[in-house]
Amino acid sequence: MKIIGIDIGGTKIKFGLFINDVLSKKIEFDTTDNIIKVLKRGINELSDNDLNGIGIAIPAPIKGSHMFNAPNLPWSNMDILNYLKEELQFSNICVINDANAAALGEYYYGNKHESVVLITLGTGVGSGIVINGEVIEGTFGLGGEIGHIPLDDKFNFECGCGSYGCAETVASASGIKRIYEKLSGSYLGTKEIFIQARDGNDFAVKTVNLYVGYIVKLCHIINYTINPEVVMLGGGVSNEGDYLLEKVRNELYSRESFDSSNSVKIEIASLGNNAGIYGAYYLTKKAS
Amino acid sequence: MKIIGIDIGGTKIKFGLFINDVLSKKIEFDTTDNIIKVLKRGINELSDNDLNGIGIAIPAPIKGSHMFNAPNLPWSNMDILNYLKEELQFSNICVINDANAAALGEYYYGNKHESVVLITLGTGVGSGIVINGEVIEGTFGLGGEIGHIPLDDKFNFECGCGSYGCAETVASASGIKRIYEKLSGSYLGTKEIFIQARDGNDFAVKTVNLYVGYIVKLCHIINYTINPEVVMLGGGVSNEGDYLLEKVRNELYSRESFDSSNSVKIEIASLGNNAGIYGAYYLTKKAS
Repeated sequence: MKIIGIDIGGTKIKFGLFINDVLSKKIEFDTTDNIIKVLKRGINELSDNDLNGIGIAIPAPIKGSHMFNAPNLPWSNMDILNYLKEELQFSNICVINDANAAALGEYYYGNKHESVVLITLGTGVGSGIVINGEVIEGTFGLGGEIGHIPLDDKFNFECGCGSYGCAETVASASGIKRIYEKLSGSYLGTKEIFIQARDGNDFAVKTVNLYVGYIVKLCHIINYTINPEVVMLGGGVSNEGDYLLEKVRNELYSRESFDSSNSVKIEIASLGNNAGIYGAYYLTKKAS
Repeated sequence: MKIIGIDIGGTKIKFGLFINDVLSKKIEFDTTDNIIKVLKRGINELSDNDLNGIGIAIPAPIKGSHMFNAPNLPWSNMDILNYLKEELQFSNICVINDANAAALGEYYYGNKHESVVLITLGTGVGSGIVINGEVIEGTFGLGGEIGHIPLDDKFNFECGCGSYGCAETVASASGIKRIYEKLSGSYLGTKEIFIQARDGNDFAVKTVNLYVGYIVKLCHIINYTINPEVVMLGGGVSNEGDYLLEKVRNELYSRESFDSSNSVKIEIASLGNNAGIYGAYYLTKKAS
């Protein structure tokens, strides 16, 4: 069986060709305004006429075949599934929110857990919730959209969604840069902030500590609502690996509350950038 | 079929006898240190030897048959199901967390919804999450334990769980009294605070506004994680009815974010104090 899993990101669109449950080939292209054109190009490069299905992960709230408003896409409030079927002239397509796809990928192709919440710390902040193998999509497609929980009233930065103080204004890769700029008065990239924090630079240390505090708040929120077996940190910022992980664990587990609240595991996501295409693939395989 | 649904609360233990899916009789006793004795008394008063099952809602994190630590009960970290089976000399028993039971009751016996989160605003704050008819119990029994999300750093009151600033330190019936006391320097009961707020008393108005802000924060958290069709407000404070509901709705819906985030419904719970016994009953009926 040949299925293509696609992950539409803010800067890249990633394509993975799965043949008999194995990721055989991966390509990616820059995201342009004409997403359909990029999709067609990727699909054509990976397959002949013998394709069985296409799974597409999209950065927007999705419920079934319906896509709600999304800040960064040319589409909104429409039957996205039927639109893509027509545009791509292909019938066996599945659509899913990108963070949900990544969580599904981790659940089925990463380490085995009863339930997984994957937090994506990238340009924005999202999450996917998978319990007993099922995604919590939410009634209006907002399941796991934790990036828009009002989390911060210290900086109260404006969010792309139109609100202020959303989790993603402080807990994203952009958020950490904004915090550093606010504290120090100068600009530094995310990686550089972490390098300087490791070196003990005062502003960078303060920035990373504040940043970790926001991640920990999100972990508490997830723990006392979903209470999954594991919270995984994914997205670009998770490349900081053990340094970030240890800081998050230390602060998270230092909080006294129910004994069992310290039992949630915190890990770095295992599939990295491939999680989304794995999840989109899995969904399509299951539906085929 | 005869089943007894029981709801163990902080001050009362409520018993409901269901005969062929109808709540036929309800009794309640004060909660004492000897909970087993009260359970036996209630069960004996409601049934002869022809009882088919007993469902018991317990104010503690529960996962399957296991009960984790709970601040207000004489039991902790044990196989509560087998303990109760032995103590009550009865084999067909089901156990469930109290807020989960109440949410299950609302889901199956209240208005019909695809998914329900019931927030209980009582001595403490809890919630039950039901999606497609299933409770989100959580891996360590903390599913829906939103009362222990760190929510407040303005007052930072100490919580019974050992932490500070938990949602239930400010969003519970006790919380609103503590807020009023902190602002005004004097004590007033929950109902009286709402009466005075309706009358325009300055401290009471400020207290209720702050209180509503915390409830709204919890609603945002629920909306951007679970995204249920409806959030229901239950527990003692929900007796404030439309006055409370309108304030919560106004503040919640005034936040600009995704369009679909304003689609979650906020309602007052419909089964009142009976929700818990209905849920405990339903679970037992299903298992019978």
